[in-house]
Amino acid sequence: MSHTLVLLRHGESDWNAKNLFTGWVDVDLTEKGRAEAVAGGRMLAEAGLLPDVVHTSLLRRAITTSALALDACDRHWIPVRRSWRLNERHYGALQGKDKKQTLEEYGEEQFMLWRRSFDVPPPPLADDDEFSQAGLAQYADLGEELPRTECLKDVIERMLPYWQSAVVDDLRSGQTVLVAAHGNSLRGIVKHLDGISDDDIAGLNIPTGMPLLYELDDDLRPTTPGGRYLDPDAAAAAAAAVANQGR
Amino acid sequence: MSHTLVLLRHGESDWNAKNLFTGWVDVDLTEKGRAEAVAGGRMLAEAGLLPDVVHTSLLRRAITTSALALDACDRHWIPVRRSWRLNERHYGALQGKDKKQTLEEYGEEQFMLWRRSFDVPPPPLADDDEFSQAGLAQYADLGEELPRTECLKDVIERMLPYWQSAVVDDLRSGQTVLVAAHGNSLRGIVKHLDGISDDDIAGLNIPTGMPLLYELDDDLRPTTPGGRYLDPDAAAAAAAAVANQGR
Repeated sequence: MSHTLVLLRHGESDWNAKNLFTGWVDVDLTEKGRAEAVAGGRMLAEAGLLPDVVHTSLLRRAITTSALALDACDRHWIPVRRSWRLNERHYGALQGKDKKQTLEEYGEEQFMLWRRSFDVPPPPLADDDEFSQAGLAQYADLGEELPRTECLKDVIERMLPYWQSAVVDDLRSGQTVLVAAHGNSLRGIVKHLDGISDDDIAGLNIPTGMPLLYELDDDLRPTTPGGRYLDPDAAAAAAAAVANQGR
Repeated sequence: MSHTLVLLRHGESDWNAKNLFTGWVDVDLTEKGRAEAVAGGRMLAEAGLLPDVVHTSLLRRAITTSALALDACDRHWIPVRRSWRLNERHYGALQGKDKKQTLEEYGEEQFMLWRRSFDVPPPPLADDDEFSQAGLAQYADLGEELPRTECLKDVIERMLPYWQSAVVDDLRSGQTVLVAAHGNSLRGIVKHLDGISDDDIAGLNIPTGMPLLYELDDDLRPTTPGGRYLDPDAAAAAAAAVANQGR
């Protein structure tokens, strides 16, 4: 029995467009981001890849992306599951900061360390910062688990328990599963599935709004390493653009 | 302990605007309908009525209404539950027909019998009709339960089991519950809550996009019969407009 997983990174957000570090700040999609989500849904319909269940983060850019994509492929009615464990990486004190300005201020080495190192988080965000999530109702149950900053390693550690329970359960029950989430939570899933090393994951960029299909065997290993973008040429061009952010 | 329930009828749909019988045909919201949904969400935010969980039908006009309203009050991240049992009344062979034309063709008496009688359904819709839902994936599990036509009595009979399990469970657990649904499934809930007679329910019209608040006691009886619209004047005007459809 093969298992079908589709990963979808949210479309362009207001802060992607403004080139700001976003993290857990709950910004909206731009009009371009909405169009990307609809286009992603149409790709699913054309490929006959119809999700039976969707998992999203608690952030509106992933939630809206999934809603628009599912509406576009007539699967708006499927069950929805959400978890903070699929949220974007918490960017700590960088949240709300301009990427280009941060690059100039701290230099290439520190900038790339924060953006792409596996285990070096940015400085933590103060709870009284305007971009803090401390005190938000959707995270009230987290208590001391609420992150104030995260490196990719932290994201993977908090994401995997959700993957291994909720998402794997749905895959094993034979459902086609859509995960609508973020650059870093999706990199965590891809790293896990493809067994990518801590060093090599830095080079992996996931483009926005492009459905990435994984067919998984009974051990939930990809039958095609790296999966397959439904539109490979567009995905390659978009991933290159992500890699160049801040330049 | 009091229990808080908010009912929200979807905003104007394409077929509301065209004055067609819709039923289970899965039409989209108009721009006006989207604006109504957003306005409904803002009313919830202003009233401090923040849903902890949302229940919707499987129809996109209710699903999109709930998504837009919840986004507008920053509750886009709450758990979502859906059921066909919250769907609009199946309008049988009238689905896709013009209301004014139907009124002229069949006369006032027959028209009002189909629209407002408690237990007289329109003729059934053939499975090979372009407006049939037979064969749609979202209803595949229903088997012989899939309606081909319904009167309000039928709607209440298939809605109540969902109310008594899923919705009541969430109310009893102390959550503020939003039900985003349709004219007739919501009339069914109101009839049940307020103990309205089979005859009198015909006169009750629920306006689109206007949150209707019920505070319920421990026996889940309304503390204020009929509930309370967050914007009573606008709701009264809108309900009168619904009552005049087809004229």
